[in-house]
Amino acid sequence: MTTAWLENEATAALDTPIVVVDLDRMDANIERMAALMGDRGVALRPHAKTHKSLRVGRRQIAAGAVGLTVATIGEAEVFAAGGIEDLFIAYPVIAAGPKAERLRRLAERCRLSVGADSIEGVTALASAFRGAGAAPAVLVEIDSGGRRSGVLPDAAGGLAVRAIDAGLRVTGVFTHAGQAYRGPERRSGAADQEVEGLAMAADSLRALGIEPTVISAGSTPTASLSARPPVTEERPGTYVFGDRQQLVLAGDPADDAGTVALVVAATVVSHGARGGFLVDSGAKILGKDTAPYAPGHGLVLGYPDAVLSRVNDHHGIAEVPDGAPRPEIGEVVWIVPNHVCPVVNLVDELVVAQGGRIVDRWPVDARGRNT
Amino acid sequence: MTTAWLENEATAALDTPIVVVDLDRMDANIERMAALMGDRGVALRPHAKTHKSLRVGRRQIAAGAVGLTVATIGEAEVFAAGGIEDLFIAYPVIAAGPKAERLRRLAERCRLSVGADSIEGVTALASAFRGAGAAPAVLVEIDSGGRRSGVLPDAAGGLAVRAIDAGLRVTGVFTHAGQAYRGPERRSGAADQEVEGLAMAADSLRALGIEPTVISAGSTPTASLSARPPVTEERPGTYVFGDRQQLVLAGDPADDAGTVALVVAATVVSHGARGGFLVDSGAKILGKDTAPYAPGHGLVLGYPDAVLSRVNDHHGIAEVPDGAPRPEIGEVVWIVPNHVCPVVNLVDELVVAQGGRIVDRWPVDARGRNT
Repeated sequence: MTTAWLENEATAALDTPIVVVDLDRMDANIERMAALMGDRGVALRPHAKTHKSLRVGRRQIAAGAVGLTVATIGEAEVFAAGGIEDLFIAYPVIAAGPKAERLRRLAERCRLSVGADSIEGVTALASAFRGAGAAPAVLVEIDSGGRRSGVLPDAAGGLAVRAIDAGLRVTGVFTHAGQAYRGPERRSGAADQEVEGLAMAADSLRALGIEPTVISAGSTPTASLSARPPVTEERPGTYVFGDRQQLVLAGDPADDAGTVALVVAATVVSHGARGGFLVDSGAKILGKDTAPYAPGHGLVLGYPDAVLSRVNDHHGIAEVPDGAPRPEIGEVVWIVPNHVCPVVNLVDELVVAQGGRIVDRWPVDARGRNT
Repeated sequence: MTTAWLENEATAALDTPIVVVDLDRMDANIERMAALMGDRGVALRPHAKTHKSLRVGRRQIAAGAVGLTVATIGEAEVFAAGGIEDLFIAYPVIAAGPKAERLRRLAERCRLSVGADSIEGVTALASAFRGAGAAPAVLVEIDSGGRRSGVLPDAAGGLAVRAIDAGLRVTGVFTHAGQAYRGPERRSGAADQEVEGLAMAADSLRALGIEPTVISAGSTPTASLSARPPVTEERPGTYVFGDRQQLVLAGDPADDAGTVALVVAATVVSHGARGGFLVDSGAKILGKDTAPYAPGHGLVLGYPDAVLSRVNDHHGIAEVPDGAPRPEIGEVVWIVPNHVCPVVNLVDELVVAQGGRIVDRWPVDARGRNT
């Protein structure tokens, strides 16, 4: 892949560390996923926690997405205020304290769905919306093998009944197959678990007289594999930018990262005293995600032998084997982060590039909206 | 230690996840370090990257700190604008592109020092300040065993000469003994390495006719151990809030975390399907720091058997042994993060508590100032 993401003059004017998005690559990712889901007849509801940006979300909607997925009420508030009309908080929200009133206001300004995986969760939701004009649809979350939130698939119907009895409207079930992230060999099996778990959950609703209209799976590594009946919706997030995890999970070699649409531009600030080199991009921009299947904290483009073996807050420390090239002090290098979602959440804006030139700067509108 | 950081009513009104600082504990930490350094006759220049907050920095200055340390020009700009008069960018700054002009403006509004560890670094600095009215003092960074930035101690003098020949003013040497973080058994040895490395570096300046006036060491685990001649200054950061790493490094048992002044307030959102519990605090507030010497991603106060074994962006996943208590869904728990610096950088404000009540909210003024 191209190792320099901007022309020399634009590169020299960068104030690093900074996040650069290649617009054409991002748009290609958006179009490719939308086309795939269109072909399958599956609704696409991208997870916006990856980009947290209205401008990106609007492009996803324009390409055919039915709405967006978010992780927090705060993200939903930002996207609703920005004109996105259909939002799903794919999270077991506990609608207590200040969150109850925020959810009520949110339900009045967009078509809202929320997740639930406990009696306490549905009870709090029902209580928050008792007597309210607009109420969200509820999707029961199931654990399809990711061992995170969600009830076991055959318990979905029971929880759905409790929600309906409490006065809520249940429209279906959802899951996230986090186990797909454990290695490339897990992708296909994880997608099967998603589909089977969701099918079982849907049946458990039907057995109690509830017809699910939304059967929603969601993760970038499994999206293309689980977009088949009875799944009606996919919620991939990371695909929009891609990252090193996704390259590895997809089996792409590191030197053919053509789908990666976001890099961190970093300046080499030191050669240290003992070999290797240091960049000004540490954990406060690259995050600290790592994975057993890929050494180091990111991929330094153009220096395939360099391993970004440590990140401190503001230092990225790269090792280079004896004799392998290393960049000069002052040189700008382009780093594909391991996991793009935390990176975007660490910056206030994205530098948008096209054809090697900076064409725009977009705010990360929902950065830091943790609540 | 107290497991509930706020009274019930204040807790119920929290919108989690959120960062809570106990004002009295923080002030005690500030006073304790200032008193210790005062006793030793060593200047205290706290690293502000931990708190990124003007209100905290001003309290450190009021307690006797000679100025603040920062990691980036952006942090320095925020603190200079907020009235802090003496700032040291303890980083091998490359004064090229937009950073050159920013540094020039900064040097006009505060007493500024910057780090350097390469000929390229001093050349860029000299070029940026050629003909400028105010210029920063330069401190040569040495590697005292942390294997990060810095020249070897005996090379400090040579670089100092190059800086002076280029027209810069060199005032001394500095180091950070990052190896102290590798485990409690490393603390004392790391402090010795700091002192010995700095002594050697100071001598290498003197051998070339340069008398260092600043000999600066810096890290919370070593501050009390290396504050002795020839060290003239200490730059600890984390001590102001403390965190789980510091407890472990100091040898404090987990149940006596009396110096910890900051927690993440999290709500239990799920019991999952397979035991344990989940909180709404994942990597986007707790960060992803971990360490071989402490299992999990933070310490859940009041639940000593719980291990926060995984953090995804918005989920903290805790395991609990069979039979051990777990919190109820909806309960607020208080989590001591492993590493406090990235946590503060992930939020826009700190909730300030005193005596169990919320007394203020402070902005994280320099959050995200990566450049």
